[in-house]
Amino acid sequence: MAGTAERMAKNQKQVAISEFFEKNKHFLGFDSLTRSLITAVKEAVDNSLDACEEARILPDIKVKITKLDDKKNIVELQTEDNGPGIPKRSIEKVFGQLLFGSRFHAIRQSRGQQGIGITGVVMYSQLTTGGKTHVRSKIATETSAAVVDIGLDTRKNKATKSNEGREVWEADDGTLKEHGLEITCRMKAKYQRGRQSVYQYLRMTSIVNPHADITFVDPDGDVHHWPRVTERLPRKVESIKPHPHGIHLGTLQRMCTESTDTRMTSFLYKNFSGVSSRAAKQLLEAAEINEKAKPKSMKPDQIRALLESFQGERELGGKPVKLLNPPTNCLSPIEELLIKKGLSKTIDSRFVTTMTRAATVSQGNPYQVEVGLIFGEGMAADKPVEILRFANRVPLMYQQGGCLLTKAIESVDWRQYGLDQAGGRGVPKGPAAVLVHLASTNVQFTSEAKEALADNGEVMDEVRKAMLEMGRGLRKHLEKKKKMVKVQEKFELVNDIIPAIAEKSAAILKRPMPNLSGSITKIMGAVIAESTTHWNKTTKMTDVSITLFNYTSRARAYTLLASWPESEGAGMENNTTGGRKEATGVWAWKLETLEPGTTYTISYSLSGLERGDWTETDVFYRGSQEVIGASKMDEKLLDEIRRQEARANEVDHEEDVAPPDEETVSAAVPVVSEEAKPSGQQTLMGFGSDA
Amino acid sequence: MAGTAERMAKNQKQVAISEFFEKNKHFLGFDSLTRSLITAVKEAVDNSLDACEEARILPDIKVKITKLDDKKNIVELQTEDNGPGIPKRSIEKVFGQLLFGSRFHAIRQSRGQQGIGITGVVMYSQLTTGGKTHVRSKIATETSAAVVDIGLDTRKNKATKSNEGREVWEADDGTLKEHGLEITCRMKAKYQRGRQSVYQYLRMTSIVNPHADITFVDPDGDVHHWPRVTERLPRKVESIKPHPHGIHLGTLQRMCTESTDTRMTSFLYKNFSGVSSRAAKQLLEAAEINEKAKPKSMKPDQIRALLESFQGERELGGKPVKLLNPPTNCLSPIEELLIKKGLSKTIDSRFVTTMTRAATVSQGNPYQVEVGLIFGEGMAADKPVEILRFANRVPLMYQQGGCLLTKAIESVDWRQYGLDQAGGRGVPKGPAAVLVHLASTNVQFTSEAKEALADNGEVMDEVRKAMLEMGRGLRKHLEKKKKMVKVQEKFELVNDIIPAIAEKSAAILKRPMPNLSGSITKIMGAVIAESTTHWNKTTKMTDVSITLFNYTSRARAYTLLASWPESEGAGMENNTTGGRKEATGVWAWKLETLEPGTTYTISYSLSGLERGDWTETDVFYRGSQEVIGASKMDEKLLDEIRRQEARANEVDHEEDVAPPDEETVSAAVPVVSEEAKPSGQQTLMGFGSDA
Repeated sequence: MAGTAERMAKNQKQVAISEFFEKNKHFLGFDSLTRSLITAVKEAVDNSLDACEEARILPDIKVKITKLDDKKNIVELQTEDNGPGIPKRSIEKVFGQLLFGSRFHAIRQSRGQQGIGITGVVMYSQLTTGGKTHVRSKIATETSAAVVDIGLDTRKNKATKSNEGREVWEADDGTLKEHGLEITCRMKAKYQRGRQSVYQYLRMTSIVNPHADITFVDPDGDVHHWPRVTERLPRKVESIKPHPHGIHLGTLQRMCTESTDTRMTSFLYKNFSGVSSRAAKQLLEAAEINEKAKPKSMKPDQIRALLESFQGERELGGKPVKLLNPPTNCLSPIEELLIKKGLSKTIDSRFVTTMTRAATVSQGNPYQVEVGLIFGEGMAADKPVEILRFANRVPLMYQQGGCLLTKAIESVDWRQYGLDQAGGRGVPKGPAAVLVHLASTNVQFTSEAKEALADNGEVMDEVRKAMLEMGRGLRKHLEKKKKMVKVQEKFELVNDIIPAIAEKSAAILKRPMPNLSGSITKIMGAVIAESTTHWNKTTKMTDVSITLFNYTSRARAYTLLASWPESEGAGMENNTTGGRKEATGVWAWKLETLEPGTTYTISYSLSGLERGDWTETDVFYRGSQEVIGASKMDEKLLDEIRRQEARANEVDHEEDVAPPDEETVSAAVPVVSEEAKPSGQQTLMGFGSDA
Repeated sequence: MAGTAERMAKNQKQVAISEFFEKNKHFLGFDSLTRSLITAVKEAVDNSLDACEEARILPDIKVKITKLDDKKNIVELQTEDNGPGIPKRSIEKVFGQLLFGSRFHAIRQSRGQQGIGITGVVMYSQLTTGGKTHVRSKIATETSAAVVDIGLDTRKNKATKSNEGREVWEADDGTLKEHGLEITCRMKAKYQRGRQSVYQYLRMTSIVNPHADITFVDPDGDVHHWPRVTERLPRKVESIKPHPHGIHLGTLQRMCTESTDTRMTSFLYKNFSGVSSRAAKQLLEAAEINEKAKPKSMKPDQIRALLESFQGERELGGKPVKLLNPPTNCLSPIEELLIKKGLSKTIDSRFVTTMTRAATVSQGNPYQVEVGLIFGEGMAADKPVEILRFANRVPLMYQQGGCLLTKAIESVDWRQYGLDQAGGRGVPKGPAAVLVHLASTNVQFTSEAKEALADNGEVMDEVRKAMLEMGRGLRKHLEKKKKMVKVQEKFELVNDIIPAIAEKSAAILKRPMPNLSGSITKIMGAVIAESTTHWNKTTKMTDVSITLFNYTSRARAYTLLASWPESEGAGMENNTTGGRKEATGVWAWKLETLEPGTTYTISYSLSGLERGDWTETDVFYRGSQEVIGASKMDEKLLDEIRRQEARANEVDHEEDVAPPDEETVSAAVPVVSEEAKPSGQQTLMGFGSDA
């Protein structure tokens, strides 16, 4: 026994972070040969998108994969972007040092966070082929591009450099490249097609990054191109300060120790979001700390007291100190119409509904959930629905079973919304695909490979709520469809049988056939709207036609309304029946009185769209008698949309002027109580009132 | 645009590994309050078990959880072991520095690997409560224990120390503690009961560590005790050298560069397992490298060529160079009987089958799969079967859906083995629990929290094979049971109806009742064995009785055999019918000729066991007529068991002498081709031949 502890202690030593990740490369997503290639593409493309977004550049990204040795599974990966480039002296650190980056301490939405990704690619390339990664970088302020080969000294977590130099970078069209980055590396990897493939990853990336233009040259030389569908860059995200609700005791302790502020009031006011100078004073009063005390001098008990007043456990006048929510301009949601556009383009189907929920806050971290659902033809009815998961605009391709987003979908009883589901739990079956996107300043993944989200009750709740709302939309769609089918069947039956009876009776009685339209109308007893939305190959426009049938015995008066993709830049042409704009994306026609047994048809064409952009038009009505095939207009929803428009116009306006000081910005974000919180940015897509 | 790249580069900086894990504490298993507590217990207990195993000490482990503030969820965790302790100067590094440890570079089976776990606990404690972790350590060579409070400077990944000192450590019984370690820390956490709980974690740990004595004092003060069930320590694991099949190009490159060897032959021979000096020469010849060349002088092309000859891509005389498999004494499987014992104790059920597959090698890493299956009463028949996952003797409690072990279970069509399973995929339903244990020198988890195994085709295959074999055992059990029930029903029917008819007929004919045993026998036409295994409260022994019924019209001769837990130290008492030992754990009785209509009963008692240790006896027979309720003896299997015994005896013998030199050890491990590989260490538990 004697000496065992000493002998065991002697074997202990410090491991470098690079040795750690070299041994555990599967944590970074380098496990199988096929996944390693997807991971490498993902890290490079994520970086390109992040850099372009930060530099406010519309990204053009090229990915090329070449098989070098098919038997030994050696491939070459080359990616190129038109981003800002990386200054020469920074290249070695960005590519050759793990945990080096700019986003670790910044609280805002971004794809990369840790400074691990691309260095992991360099490391994997070196480990499996012994080779270096060739980097070419051009920044706007220099005339030539910097080139260098980067390797990794894993024992020290330092880059090794060779073949450094400068060269002129000509673009494909012979012009000089203004700015951009190109990465070329070889690795042991395998290219394959299918659900988990580079192709699929890029396709999914284009859905949630509609502003990006992506070109992929596969190993067979086939070129796949996903053009950008919008010129609008994602909202610019601002870094925010930490919010008191998300602070741990140890972090607060360290912030105090490291602070150079002279007074606690300014310390709180300057280092936290959501804390006005008034709130700072109140927090300190509740914690019984002198306003003028130095942060550095805080005792452990005082820090604990301050945290308690942060968390509302210490009150002032019987109430917790009110803090503003953190600003949500650190987030950049994709927004509904763009998701819809992306989805419709990718999967050809009849019913698409999307929604972006309002940004909310969990433990001081702003986050926002967006969902989409496609239902209809062209998808297998007896298979589990396809789940498309995204976090901060990055597709998640692996670990579906272990992901919070999947668990949220599985926890919904989809049977009530018209999908098959054994026992009301698990992934439902049906001809549908579900998209979920989480945008957050702090996406918690289960590992560095960033393929699955870790458990979090609040995010789970938020995703569930979005799912339930979408589910209701789906149910309504299915009910509407069912009702239409029933009415149509009845109409066909009535139109078949009554004339047949009439004809027989007339023949027997040897009298002429009576006019039956009145009787048919009486039996039908309904007003029906039928709408069609078709792509017109000749005119390159989308033709829409809406017909209203009055199959009742009384005259009827209506206002008909229709959704159209106005904010996507569509134009309304050949609208012979006039009408007027009700709100952005909603057009209204006040109809003449519709006599019993008569019909009225509205028709127009949408210009500025591509095939597949717009496949279904939602029709709404104002009037007392129900219209089968249309939804009763939800006036509250319409008001909400108008209010949002007004707000958006204000914000657009604000962008032109100097940013207001912090106090004002914080105040502009109202403290919203749980009950009054709007359920999301509303549009009319797929949602009418419960008519 | 100008200057954007520079501005962006300016924000980049290096992040310390401790900052990284503080922000991503959920990677380490600190996500929810309940999971954080389990993670902390797990890290402490894993370390204790590892340290005791290495120091060859039978572990006594105490875990105590106290609620300090129920409202704010502050708990205190205290763990204590009787391990070797940690020398004073090493304490701060072990507890206050991430990636510091002894197991990272060692190739052998161990629970801890990275040097992250316990420092993560110290970090989480500090982050959530601001407090330090109190450590008390006593090593055998010092008279007093070292005490110190450890914190973590996360900006630098360095420990902070306070209240250092020495004290006398008295054990609970007043004696001086010889050696051991005690850790006390506070953290934000929540104690809860249920499937994912500290209680469950410790219970599972005791199943796969039958040599450990574990005591748990829960927050209510209730004491739970899992005593050790064997005094035998797990096999001592030896570190091995890397095997050429598992080496990456980058690693080989580094090994050459860092080598101080003067010749390539000695470099290969000394640094790799499975390479004899002859093989070293052949490898170099195939790679066209001079034997006498210096490792340091190797060119990239030469290293690539050497790797190709490692992997058999470069041949010698038309054949790849033959390498020995790595030795498997780096693994420590639990072994079947101990698993069975653990399982039977935990879940009271009728049918338990276990198997340990032979150690095998994936990419140069030895690994071994063990499985167990329990089926029967006391478990819900309409729920998914319980899955108990373990890696290197550590229970895996989270991320079940994302784990390779679960996927392997889900990929088996369990319907053919008598369990319910929708579509023949997914977790089956039924009154069963499945245990899977992977022992490996390189367990690849999906994240640092070590809760799920990453995908690996070879391990998947191996687990599947084990499952299929167990499934066959289950099917046989169910078929046997079904047959027994049928025969019993027939017997009861025959025994009811024939006498009734005879009685009626006799009464009508006014004649006496005839003797019916001959007729009954004729109708039954079967030989039946019935066995019972019961715990006898009075004698504290397990009573076994086996009765053979000859319900055929001919005399029969048999040898009956029964399994019994001989290797668990059980004794056979009151065995009045004699017999003899066939193999370890198998007893045989040669019966006198059994006349038609007669029965023969064997009975004995097993001493040295506890209640629940042995609940079912497998009965086998030798003879031409089938015996319902017993299995025909598989003579090949019996021979295999005898051969294994012989080998084990040799190994036992070897342990007493000096270890043979490396050459001999390698040679002692035969190169086994895929076809000839035995399917595992065989015992008779639950498996007979296909009678």
